[in-house]
Amino acid sequence: MHISDLRTPAFLIDLNQLKTNAGMMINRARDLGVQLRPHVKTHKTVEAAKYQLGDSFDEITVSTLAEAFSFQKNGFQDITYAFPITADKLDDATQLTNTLRHFHLVLDQYDSFEQVENYGFEHDLTFSVYLVVDSGAHRDGINPDDPRSIQLARALQEANNIDFRGILTHAGQSYHCKSVGEIKKVAAEERDIMVHFAKKLRSADVECPEVSIGSTPTCVHADHLEGVTEMRPGNYIFFDKFQSDIGSCSLSDCSMRVLTRIIGHYPDRNRILIDAGALALSKDLGATHILDEVVYGQIKNHPELKITKLSQEHGFIDSDKPIQFTNYPIGSLLEIIPNHSCLTAALFPKYHVIENDEVVDEWKPVRGW
Amino acid sequence: MHISDLRTPAFLIDLNQLKTNAGMMINRARDLGVQLRPHVKTHKTVEAAKYQLGDSFDEITVSTLAEAFSFQKNGFQDITYAFPITADKLDDATQLTNTLRHFHLVLDQYDSFEQVENYGFEHDLTFSVYLVVDSGAHRDGINPDDPRSIQLARALQEANNIDFRGILTHAGQSYHCKSVGEIKKVAAEERDIMVHFAKKLRSADVECPEVSIGSTPTCVHADHLEGVTEMRPGNYIFFDKFQSDIGSCSLSDCSMRVLTRIIGHYPDRNRILIDAGALALSKDLGATHILDEVVYGQIKNHPELKITKLSQEHGFIDSDKPIQFTNYPIGSLLEIIPNHSCLTAALFPKYHVIENDEVVDEWKPVRGW
Repeated sequence: MHISDLRTPAFLIDLNQLKTNAGMMINRARDLGVQLRPHVKTHKTVEAAKYQLGDSFDEITVSTLAEAFSFQKNGFQDITYAFPITADKLDDATQLTNTLRHFHLVLDQYDSFEQVENYGFEHDLTFSVYLVVDSGAHRDGINPDDPRSIQLARALQEANNIDFRGILTHAGQSYHCKSVGEIKKVAAEERDIMVHFAKKLRSADVECPEVSIGSTPTCVHADHLEGVTEMRPGNYIFFDKFQSDIGSCSLSDCSMRVLTRIIGHYPDRNRILIDAGALALSKDLGATHILDEVVYGQIKNHPELKITKLSQEHGFIDSDKPIQFTNYPIGSLLEIIPNHSCLTAALFPKYHVIENDEVVDEWKPVRGW
Repeated sequence: MHISDLRTPAFLIDLNQLKTNAGMMINRARDLGVQLRPHVKTHKTVEAAKYQLGDSFDEITVSTLAEAFSFQKNGFQDITYAFPITADKLDDATQLTNTLRHFHLVLDQYDSFEQVENYGFEHDLTFSVYLVVDSGAHRDGINPDDPRSIQLARALQEANNIDFRGILTHAGQSYHCKSVGEIKKVAAEERDIMVHFAKKLRSADVECPEVSIGSTPTCVHADHLEGVTEMRPGNYIFFDKFQSDIGSCSLSDCSMRVLTRIIGHYPDRNRILIDAGALALSKDLGATHILDEVVYGQIKNHPELKITKLSQEHGFIDSDKPIQFTNYPIGSLLEIIPNHSCLTAALFPKYHVIENDEVVDEWKPVRGW
């Protein structure tokens, strides 16, 4: 089937580019001397995860329990659930711990630690746990300069029903960078904060087997990862306009796009409408810290067109110049590289995998929580 | 099951409030003397559509072909596909035309008209078609002051394979209102533009059986709808923070919310994290034309807390005052009224229907296109 036979909007994956991106990160991890434990939250499909993994290991990272259960069913055996655990999710975590070769939790709260430990004691099982560290994103994670961070790490190590796995971070602040130079700086910070904290733990007699980092920008641009054991990037498998704008990739590295059709010409307002709206692109504003204006993705081969507004199913295309409407016939196709592939992909019940504009496969992502 | 037994984030529907909202619009339509053809795009479930319809008719409006096919399968017999048709979607439209009692298309382009007419001729069938009119939203719709608008209406009427149904609009500009007074003004404009255009058509010997309007704000606040035959609101079944902010409803009229749990305390940055991020709330910014700051929804019973930022699965809660963390224990539940219920609902594979915090049903929306 040719892409022109697809009902639009549709989510396309360029298989060759996806393989290239997967291979790039496998090589990065090997060159940097760390284990790659790719995040699957961007695509949520078994098929893309297999490309991310190559053929030498099977460790993945997930963001939801729904992902964890789905990948477990599909034979994945070593899963880190990289979202702070709370007591309500421990029944599910138990199921996963009991059925997988390895299932790892993460936490950064003393209360959560106590709940995990007590639950493990009551149910006679041991949870594998990472301690989340804030390396500058100021999202989750303990402050490594706060003395209580060592206390919590020690408590994890000394707990009877916890196997303390090590420390883990996500340098989300790399998303605020404006250049490769800035990303390199954040990557160095992320690494140095984590390696330094691991040393501090070890010198306080707290074992810290793993030092895990992750964020596509920093994993792409880190100069070295000495002292780090594992990296968990996810977005790179698709990349997107945002990653291209901040310097993680070029636009041509993006392996997905939203296929849409032109549904209307409005010459009196110099506007085109397309059949990709907020439900096909997401309302992610993109790299607003760099760009002068908000656009909802980049239309391939049409730098003169700007997606300026979205309603639920309509996309609004404007232009700084008078649009030559005859160049964009009603019903003709456009391909959009969205601002944020993770949020866009999550809106589609299926992806169409293509090679040279022919649909060669259909992948179904897992949804929900 | 109590809502505290749900895995979070979860999408809750307060069944009694939903029934109240459904009944309100049924009464509005009756009082205003127009047919209600509710839009189902907000919830996309058979169950909610039945409440919207009451028991006296079965006309609905859909925004995607996936909705049309799903509702057709579930016994709905009169469907308007209120999205501009293009040639690529005519095979599907044919299936629906052939299997439903009534299936109506909409268009506003001369090219699309020709394609529909030619397709109908080639396949020996008649499509029921509305002409979309721009009543001020400047999205889709012909400009009723442009003489070509009458030409297109006449072409529709005279076409052999088209049954010209009438005119249709969506006063999306009502979403930019700041008060009930402003909404009333837009509602009057929407009505007057449509009624005036219908008269113009009739005096030019173009029959115009239907005059269809639709937008939750204008349908809630129109003073009268004389000359209008049909209304197609959708959002009112749930309402949301946006509708409350502009004056379509009060916050307590909202019949849905996102259930979330507190996953972390960060006293050094006066911050709470929750397990509802961009994939549970959507990145819709809400009524930015009214509010001083961007927040991603309103937390029920906690006006002191503000959702200021979202990453994929994390929600960031800040406060202008020092947060008393002991009031918000780790793992405890919060309920969020999202900015935009249509976009939020679309992120959930299922809805939990509740009465008094007990889950009484589970509804599965249709997804995709």
